Amino acid sequence: MLKKLLVDVHTHVYLPRYAELLRSRSAVPRIIPAPAASTDSKPSERLLILDHEPSGGRPVGPQYWSRDEKLGFMDKHGIDVSIVSSANPWLDFLPAPDASDIAIKLNDDLEEYCSSSPIISDQRIKRLYGFGMLPLVPGITTSALLDSVRQISLLPHLKGLIMGTRGVGKGLDDEALDPVWEAIEKEKLVVFLHPHYGVDNDAWGEKENGHVLPLALGFPFETTVATTRLILAGVLDKFPDLRLLLAHSGGALTQLSSRLASCIHHDPLVASRLKHDARYYIGRLYYDAVSYGSEELQFVADTIGRSQRMMFGTDHPFFPPLNGEIKWRSVVENLEAIQGVSGWSQEQKDGVEGGNALKLFNLVQ
Amino acid sequence: MLKKLLVDVHTHVYLPRYAELLRSRSAVPRIIPAPAASTDSKPSERLLILDHEPSGGRPVGPQYWSRDEKLGFMDKHGIDVSIVSSANPWLDFLPAPDASDIAIKLNDDLEEYCSSSPIISDQRIKRLYGFGMLPLVPGITTSALLDSVRQISLLPHLKGLIMGTRGVGKGLDDEALDPVWEAIEKEKLVVFLHPHYGVDNDAWGEKENGHVLPLALGFPFETTVATTRLILAGVLDKFPDLRLLLAHSGGALTQLSSRLASCIHHDPLVASRLKHDARYYIGRLYYDAVSYGSEELQFVADTIGRSQRMMFGTDHPFFPPLNGEIKWRSVVENLEAIQGVSGWSQEQKDGVEGGNALKLFNLVQ
Repeated sequence: MLKKLLVDVHTHVYLPRYAELLRSRSAVPRIIPAPAASTDSKPSERLLILDHEPSGGRPVGPQYWSRDEKLGFMDKHGIDVSIVSSANPWLDFLPAPDASDIAIKLNDDLEEYCSSSPIISDQRIKRLYGFGMLPLVPGITTSALLDSVRQISLLPHLKGLIMGTRGVGKGLDDEALDPVWEAIEKEKLVVFLHPHYGVDNDAWGEKENGHVLPLALGFPFETTVATTRLILAGVLDKFPDLRLLLAHSGGALTQLSSRLASCIHHDPLVASRLKHDARYYIGRLYYDAVSYGSEELQFVADTIGRSQRMMFGTDHPFFPPLNGEIKWRSVVENLEAIQGVSGWSQEQKDGVEGGNALKLFNLVQ
Repeated sequence: MLKKLLVDVHTHVYLPRYAELLRSRSAVPRIIPAPAASTDSKPSERLLILDHEPSGGRPVGPQYWSRDEKLGFMDKHGIDVSIVSSANPWLDFLPAPDASDIAIKLNDDLEEYCSSSPIISDQRIKRLYGFGMLPLVPGITTSALLDSVRQISLLPHLKGLIMGTRGVGKGLDDEALDPVWEAIEKEKLVVFLHPHYGVDNDAWGEKENGHVLPLALGFPFETTVATTRLILAGVLDKFPDLRLLLAHSGGALTQLSSRLASCIHHDPLVASRLKHDARYYIGRLYYDAVSYGSEELQFVADTIGRSQRMMFGTDHPFFPPLNGEIKWRSVVENLEAIQGVSGWSQEQKDGVEGGNALKLFNLVQ
């Protein structure tokens, strides 16, 4: 019996090579020097990643690129293992040849970042593993995408890949991606589906609400739409062994799942294309436990029929502490949410905290 | 002790005057004759209400405007009382003077529709009550809106009003609406908040998915955004006794509620404006039980802390049966969802089926 481990499946990095790329750019996404007035004791930088970034972006620093900072954060919160992924917007903004070239380098960088991390004493696993990245941009060739899948599958510390929702320009329900899904399924890589664009900035209105609406609502909506489109396009029928891990507990997917099933039923042309009720596919996906509340976690597990497909995450280094707290509130909330699920046994809670991820990523012997 | 009643709080009508208006129009929303090829035994019409309506709209007929059809539908499903509301898009497409004029007439029409309905034997209540309508269009004067609130409050069978999310053009978080909220709160009218526009048609992609994405996802997203914006603007702080009933069980509002609270906490400018945690406001709202699944219903009740704020609805005459079933699947599913909530006592289920609505609409002595 192995020691119980805490595993973070939703934790991001801008690798140094990527941060340099963002510094070299004159358009969003970019990293810019902080305005002089706001630099106090130490110089700092600001990150602009959303198209309509309020208040000059957000502070960015070594917690985004330093592996020591990542390990320090893990130690502080008792996190044994992290499955690290590049933060959005990945390579979405690059022309195809550049994207292809840098994807290879960043995947190699991430392998090095993980492979040289400490081994957990008494266990045969490292503290860091990674999600690689594909050069998913308009104009990319299928063979470049397949090369990238192959590269990731050959790098021993990369256990999957993170993917946005844009595909090669037409979304993830684009048939052009079928060979890519096929290769990912064959290589048993986990796809971590993560939002970046939100949905419809016009919907947020004219009031100054900071990042609240795009982050709290736009991000989960985007994931919900992308996953639903995958279901409706039959991708999960064609590739039934595909392993999709949804960011932010799948957004609104589970709460809208019975409504979705009903709407499909009442649209016979759509219904006739699918092998199963929409809830069948939703029950076959994996969900991080990044939803900040016990009721939400219990509900996702109830809807998909099990907690074994759910796993702890932090969203580090986003949502840093505001008031100098030692432990990050965003992390503590997500841990307390798991412990507070009244309908889960301790064994189920342990699973969500680590065991489920160890199995999904094949990290147990 | 009164007989247990089944009360439908989410059931729509296009009053004859409104249907005539739609027939007179040359742009969406409109009612058009069905193409000759599709008219079999009886002539029929088609309704176009969404901007991007696939496949030439949907069949529309007397179930949309005939009161006998409404009562027949209620009898067939054992529904004792319906709180009827005009279906979207209400008066959103009209110039202000026209909207003002027809709102008065439609509210009078709806009062007549309800007041002349049968009385339930042994009880002092009628079978039909209504949600009136305000002329919420750009350019309308506040005094016209207040006149409309007053009219509704004086019509004895109108128990509230149905409202879309656009306000007078800038959404419901527009300060221009403050006097309207104040009057609605004072008159103790229930606001039935209902979507029409969805969110971002571009998000649905290029595949032919019928109405599924805008209806299953766009509609609930719209309600979620509008309610969140009301919270963020402090409307629920300013008008704490406002009674808002959210369509489709509030969309994704409860599933995203802890994430919303976290995002607000991490945006101090927004957080400092609000008196309470976001979940406090979410717990003070009312939710229909139109979400087609027991897990969803239980979850909403768990999140808001009680089932007493939830109430049965059908969305009639939308989602009609496809295969000639006698009872409508959409209705049966929503009733079975209530009965199937494992965490609810029979008394709680009875409340969601009718008792909660009777109390909210002040229909019990």
